[in-house]
Amino acid sequence: MPKIVDHAKQREKIVEATWRVILREGIGQTSVRKVAEEAGLSPGAMRHYFSTQSELLAFSMAFVSERFEQRVRGIQYKKASPLEYLRKIIEELLPLDQEKMQETAIWFAFASQATLDPRQQELSRKIYADLRSIFVSVIDGLVRYDLARTDLQREVEIDRFYALVDGLAVHKFLQPDQLPVERMRSIVSHHLASLCRE
Amino acid sequence: MPKIVDHAKQREKIVEATWRVILREGIGQTSVRKVAEEAGLSPGAMRHYFSTQSELLAFSMAFVSERFEQRVRGIQYKKASPLEYLRKIIEELLPLDQEKMQETAIWFAFASQATLDPRQQELSRKIYADLRSIFVSVIDGLVRYDLARTDLQREVEIDRFYALVDGLAVHKFLQPDQLPVERMRSIVSHHLASLCRE
Repeated sequence: MPKIVDHAKQREKIVEATWRVILREGIGQTSVRKVAEEAGLSPGAMRHYFSTQSELLAFSMAFVSERFEQRVRGIQYKKASPLEYLRKIIEELLPLDQEKMQETAIWFAFASQATLDPRQQELSRKIYADLRSIFVSVIDGLVRYDLARTDLQREVEIDRFYALVDGLAVHKFLQPDQLPVERMRSIVSHHLASLCRE
Repeated sequence: MPKIVDHAKQREKIVEATWRVILREGIGQTSVRKVAEEAGLSPGAMRHYFSTQSELLAFSMAFVSERFEQRVRGIQYKKASPLEYLRKIIEELLPLDQEKMQETAIWFAFASQATLDPRQQELSRKIYADLRSIFVSVIDGLVRYDLARTDLQREVEIDRFYALVDGLAVHKFLQPDQLPVERMRSIVSHHLASLCRE
């Protein structure tokens, strides 16, 4: 009987091995060979999935995006107030726990690498736009739910909120001891409240 | 007559060569050997200044900080309103022109490298704290000049503004075409205004 391989599981295992290698050795050192070793795969088995660092990073990044989207779909918006619902969506982007810290590390590694690798730039622009679209939804959500200040400047607020959240993520990633999780949460709540009418 | 070498000039030349190599090849590839070649120095002359990548990055980062401080000291605060003065200080941190884009690249490279290199962590923490202290001065300045909202939450606003500015810098660095310079400026002005009384 041929060996049955669960390809989705294997890919997830490879993504997790990629995280560990990035966190331990940095993106420049995250080669296909090292990740295969870390995942306990032979070079042949690994080539079945990925043959270049570029493919490996692109896949890991896409995996992180997909996982984020799944979490957002899982938020029970009917149980929360509209403001609570929007806050929860944004919190899914912040490195508030170990899993999301790993995602931040992957994003950081992928996005910095993409500035140097033309093959990654299309995906990098897509990720940038996809993440920005979350803030479009949040700002438009505030207006739709009739919560927004009447003088809200849509475009400025979209890019302001987006930069704030990525800035918090970068600070937490670079200096994990300096920015407590509760501080990140209060900043997001406070920012959201500041966009709403008194 | 012995050859006179201007060591400060040589170091500046090396820092500029470091920038170019980081931007072209990424931090992982920024070796002492490559930077020496880029700066047109022999390995022996280079060793006079730096012998490890770690030293080279630390010096380049310190150079960037020093240059930023010089620019801030050069701002003529007597000619501007207090709010204008605070806005100008913050704009010195944003990648609004080519020189400041290079500084952002060095900071980004240094800070990501420092997460993996224990020898860099002390300097990285100092840079984080020095930059944060600018936002402490800005928030305390708003209070001192009697501009701040009466309900201003000092600690939250310090970390919020700091994250916002670094988030803008990271977005501009990662996707230079997506965030126009004028948008960054309006976001900072708008943010400052939102901290002030109506």
